[in-house]
Amino acid sequence: MKLYNHPIAPNPRRVRIFAAEKSIPLQLEDVDLLAGQTRSPEFLKKNSSGAVPVLELDDGTHLSESVAICRYLEALHPEPNLFGRDPREQAEVERWNRRMELELFGTIARTLQNTAPIFKGIFPQFPDYGEAQRKLATDRLERMDRELEGREFVAGERFSIADITALVAIDIGGALGNITVDPKLGNLTRWREAVSNRPSAKA
Amino acid sequence: MKLYNHPIAPNPRRVRIFAAEKSIPLQLEDVDLLAGQTRSPEFLKKNSSGAVPVLELDDGTHLSESVAICRYLEALHPEPNLFGRDPREQAEVERWNRRMELELFGTIARTLQNTAPIFKGIFPQFPDYGEAQRKLATDRLERMDRELEGREFVAGERFSIADITALVAIDIGGALGNITVDPKLGNLTRWREAVSNRPSAKA
Repeated sequence: MKLYNHPIAPNPRRVRIFAAEKSIPLQLEDVDLLAGQTRSPEFLKKNSSGAVPVLELDDGTHLSESVAICRYLEALHPEPNLFGRDPREQAEVERWNRRMELELFGTIARTLQNTAPIFKGIFPQFPDYGEAQRKLATDRLERMDRELEGREFVAGERFSIADITALVAIDIGGALGNITVDPKLGNLTRWREAVSNRPSAKA
Repeated sequence: MKLYNHPIAPNPRRVRIFAAEKSIPLQLEDVDLLAGQTRSPEFLKKNSSGAVPVLELDDGTHLSESVAICRYLEALHPEPNLFGRDPREQAEVERWNRRMELELFGTIARTLQNTAPIFKGIFPQFPDYGEAQRKLATDRLERMDRELEGREFVAGERFSIADITALVAIDIGGALGNITVDPKLGNLTRWREAVSNRPSAKA
């Protein structure tokens, strides 16, 4: 299987980490996002939203959206389990993955899109809105720290896709937007160190 | 099972429609969102994000996030299937549900949060950003119209959760934000009429 990839963008990284946790080999083909390569008519046939990652299956069809790709990989390679084992746990993992995606990842992404120099000319920038999102991202990190009290991982006692979503969000926020984790947030700092030290984090 | 609900908010409606499609009875308990009832310490114990819907299970535990609740209901009542039957179809439904959620619902929500009078004082409003999101929502509706060419439903030939997500987004955009579907968008108009005419749409 081939993954249309970008070395920095968080969503392809989410799939790379997920696949690494399961030891699934992926052939990577980098595309130049900032140069608009995903907006070409040829690429839009693979994914009409013009985004990476896109997974090319061996039958030549394409699958897009990072979490949809991860769910497909989970079905092909159920272990180690990253989406939950029974309906209740699956719902809990979905819940926390959405919390990390919609509250944290989305807020960090909008901070970057509206304030980071690298996105000038790529996105219309509204700096005041971006700064409000930056403040909100900090609030969300504080909430996440409270929620990690007494639990090892985001969705409970096991590593799951929710940890991967949170990690890629926090890392890109630090790399491009100066959104850092205050060391006083002890639970979050402990969690981040643990998930960053997994070999998959380098994928 | 009891659903903490709001009669207008789109996410509780998503769960109500989903349950209606499966003929699952839910005991509804409305909460007053605008008065901050979901921010009370008591409610935050049920859902630390302070949002509805929240499903209260018969064992007294709680499950939150609309799509997580729907996935749990799907596991309890697999038919009619709304998340896909095999791994490939499940991935496709997830893909399209995410597209509808992240591209359409999110964009419409940010338009409303930043421009609608009802949200003044609830969200800090950035009208210029909101108007840019309104324009983007219109672009996304046009793209959705193109993507519905030759297909009956959002994720393919079957009704799925992706249709529910798109419907609640478009309806709330029309109700609170004057974001309307141009009748020239023939595929989208045909789709919207079909899904709005399903009995579940009134749930």
